[in-house]
Amino acid sequence: MPDAPRRPRNGGRAGAALRRGSEVIDQMPWNPPLLVDRPVEPLTEDGVHAIHDGAMRILEEIGIEFLNHAALDILRTAGCTIDGQNVRMGRDMVMDYLALAPETFTLTPRNPARAITIGGRHMNFGNVSSPPNYWDMELGRKVPGTREMCRNLLKLSQYFNCIHFNGGYPVEPVDIHAAVRHLDVLYDTLTLTDKVTHAYSLGAERVEDVMEMVRISGGWSHAEFEASPRMYTNINSTSPLKHDGPMLDGWMRLARRNQGLVVTPFTLAGAMAPVTMSGAVAQSLAEALCAVVLAQIIRPGAACAIGTFTSNVDMKSGAPAFGTPEYMRATQMTGQLARFYKLPMRSSGVCAANVPDGQAMWETSNSLWAAVQSGSHMVYHAAGWLEGGLIASPEKFVMDCEVLQQIQRYLDPALWATGPDEIALDAIRSVGSAGHFFGIQHTQDRYATAFYQPFLSDWKNYEAWEAAGSVWTPERAHHIFREIISNFEEPPMDAAIRAELSDFVARRKSEGGAPTDF
Amino acid sequence: MPDAPRRPRNGGRAGAALRRGSEVIDQMPWNPPLLVDRPVEPLTEDGVHAIHDGAMRILEEIGIEFLNHAALDILRTAGCTIDGQNVRMGRDMVMDYLALAPETFTLTPRNPARAITIGGRHMNFGNVSSPPNYWDMELGRKVPGTREMCRNLLKLSQYFNCIHFNGGYPVEPVDIHAAVRHLDVLYDTLTLTDKVTHAYSLGAERVEDVMEMVRISGGWSHAEFEASPRMYTNINSTSPLKHDGPMLDGWMRLARRNQGLVVTPFTLAGAMAPVTMSGAVAQSLAEALCAVVLAQIIRPGAACAIGTFTSNVDMKSGAPAFGTPEYMRATQMTGQLARFYKLPMRSSGVCAANVPDGQAMWETSNSLWAAVQSGSHMVYHAAGWLEGGLIASPEKFVMDCEVLQQIQRYLDPALWATGPDEIALDAIRSVGSAGHFFGIQHTQDRYATAFYQPFLSDWKNYEAWEAAGSVWTPERAHHIFREIISNFEEPPMDAAIRAELSDFVARRKSEGGAPTDF
Repeated sequence: MPDAPRRPRNGGRAGAALRRGSEVIDQMPWNPPLLVDRPVEPLTEDGVHAIHDGAMRILEEIGIEFLNHAALDILRTAGCTIDGQNVRMGRDMVMDYLALAPETFTLTPRNPARAITIGGRHMNFGNVSSPPNYWDMELGRKVPGTREMCRNLLKLSQYFNCIHFNGGYPVEPVDIHAAVRHLDVLYDTLTLTDKVTHAYSLGAERVEDVMEMVRISGGWSHAEFEASPRMYTNINSTSPLKHDGPMLDGWMRLARRNQGLVVTPFTLAGAMAPVTMSGAVAQSLAEALCAVVLAQIIRPGAACAIGTFTSNVDMKSGAPAFGTPEYMRATQMTGQLARFYKLPMRSSGVCAANVPDGQAMWETSNSLWAAVQSGSHMVYHAAGWLEGGLIASPEKFVMDCEVLQQIQRYLDPALWATGPDEIALDAIRSVGSAGHFFGIQHTQDRYATAFYQPFLSDWKNYEAWEAAGSVWTPERAHHIFREIISNFEEPPMDAAIRAELSDFVARRKSEGGAPTDF
Repeated sequence: MPDAPRRPRNGGRAGAALRRGSEVIDQMPWNPPLLVDRPVEPLTEDGVHAIHDGAMRILEEIGIEFLNHAALDILRTAGCTIDGQNVRMGRDMVMDYLALAPETFTLTPRNPARAITIGGRHMNFGNVSSPPNYWDMELGRKVPGTREMCRNLLKLSQYFNCIHFNGGYPVEPVDIHAAVRHLDVLYDTLTLTDKVTHAYSLGAERVEDVMEMVRISGGWSHAEFEASPRMYTNINSTSPLKHDGPMLDGWMRLARRNQGLVVTPFTLAGAMAPVTMSGAVAQSLAEALCAVVLAQIIRPGAACAIGTFTSNVDMKSGAPAFGTPEYMRATQMTGQLARFYKLPMRSSGVCAANVPDGQAMWETSNSLWAAVQSGSHMVYHAAGWLEGGLIASPEKFVMDCEVLQQIQRYLDPALWATGPDEIALDAIRSVGSAGHFFGIQHTQDRYATAFYQPFLSDWKNYEAWEAAGSVWTPERAHHIFREIISNFEEPPMDAAIRAELSDFVARRKSEGGAPTDF
């Protein structure tokens, strides 16, 4: 809600007069929401135990492949049964190590005002991560991502207060060579945004470079960097039942340096996991929990969250589907198990649609509401995702931010306060049966902040909407995107730190960057 | 889900080959869902009591205008305090009469297989009601409704199994004179559909005509018609704090003849109700509950449900907003109070958007999920609504039905079964870490019914979607709409009953229909 009551607002109508500086729209202030409702819990207690038992039996009887010798050595020493690369571990050991993981941790980027808490009742939204392609209304087609597109999406990520952290690259800038891409994108991320940053676990050099750049961005000593999590990685298992070498390498590097760790199996039911949702969830949990165990062996108390990416495929084509009823329930089920294990949880805002139309928004709404209902603490891909993650779109980004702001307002308990001022008997008495509430003092005192004020939704009637050009939602979103980019102001950064970052990038480029043969 | 496992399905892709008869798409069978989750309940117990107390004090201290002498006489006799048209009633009296209302009732139309249960865990979806205007992709503009448009929307209402009852006219056919409009539209409704029917409470003649036509449609004697509810009316109070004469007249006529009664105050916070949501909900409840009291005085045990239409206005323009965070929470709050009063509840699927785009779908998704979360038993306007109810759109209808089917699937507990077959440990063991689940027997045995199968959502990748013509969702919906209308088959009706209905319409037209001066 706007914080200046009674200030006239133009609410982000397309074509609205610009405000000074970067205030293109009136948006809600930075204020990551608190999950105030009881989660939606489809599983009975017996159901929770059945899935837990399934996950434990997978770890005990079937095992997970760990394609990393250092990880295998650590797990062997800790008492796991190793057979080649297959790792089995007993449920007592698993539960003992899970008990070491904190229920809540914080990630503190260079701007401490952008610190986020992962766990408890805290909910945080991240931008779209990792699409190789880009689509916008002006292009009208799908094209490979570029650094400029990536920078524009980073500007949106910084601009919108409802985006609380950065995920992976919001679009993969394939015009930058893979050896140095991480240097340029992290430089852009750390200078264009002051929010929490992510490192891909794609090789030792990349991970170390990113940790060093984040350290520089905060002006921290190595000890300060490691004193508490400043950033995080997200790894995916290679379902079914496998963790790849580079992912595990990054996971262990961040664990050693006390940074945030998120593990998200990509268990599409019917493809990489059983066609039955509780089987897919059990497998996802097994794959995630064994990575948490590894982290806790390396650093008892390491900041870990488990992610869910359990959805289903189209059984006719094998195509992944997102935001489906199965996706929603799997997310809620995973939430129940995350609470059972007392671990923070990540989910996503996802869809299968190719363009930012009605389907995109019902699928994304389904997945975002499932994030709320499941008690998710980190919501990846919460803005800008299309085509099952293969396309990033700035219009979709802007549309999703309207939905995210509504979720933030939805979670504001002021909305359902029931004191005498809110029951408003005197106001009702004063208006009686013949008047209206527009002009009365009770309304005047509250109208500026009483309701969610959209920046993109058009609430004009049809005739007024037609007179304004009959502009459908994606076109309005495109206009807002362009205005935000045109008026973008970088968050402040100390000149010495910026220079140190530039020097680091230049030096590492001169050294050839990172190997690309992983 | 399709009931024939393994049958190849084409899933309603635009341009899909037609099936025989009216099977244009593969849709879910008729199966009104059961609400299986705990409702979302923002209010504490104290909050529930505060709103209840507010509603009671409105009825005790401020009173409601009843613009109907017969109603005033009945309420006076029952012990209410009458001052002119203002009616006050004590909370003991209110609670005593509310206790007479059934927690659950059924509405049984001419096809008993289409009977619906209102209350308990039963959820039912109705079509859009009462827009004066129509919009479709082919027209590309808003036009006044006609009988043909109305008939087409009735055909969609009959065709889709996820539409469980008829609301008011799905579009107002203004090409039919108001004196006889109810006769033609009810004839169309009763012959084109076999689902539960609604009567507008807009004058004695209309109400009596509709009850008589519904009686004829079922081949029932008057006693059989009155033995249990066959149809229903929905009345709106004229907020704030007023019930109009014709609405009350219809309400009492249906109460006397043991038909269904739904009362839905239209309390827009900040306009016809307090700007604070709990005040708006308290006022809405007061307006609804006093109508239920009236019905229970007339017929103890009368089948009553309370509706909520509490939303907010845009405080800049006064325009109504729908599907907002405030709308969602007001719906959930009303659900808590409906359970407190042990009354069935109606809510709606609504939006402010003017065209079937992204905004339309996030607003409608918000309102439909709020219907689920609130424990709503009747969901009005669940398919086809645009522009705050001023436009009916067939494309929106088809798009909404995709969402409704997903809600039906979401509420199917089979989705989260946790028996050994669903945990699927043997399947996970058999696939191990090197294979996939597509081909295994566990998948083969279940793939045809494992997941929700859309008829409108396009899950193709971008390139395949582009090759198929780059068709956005509303255009695909338009295509399906046209195919459904082209292939529509009326539900069977006995020829003698059809003749009796026709004769009744002809006779009442020759008598001049209903007065139009209400």
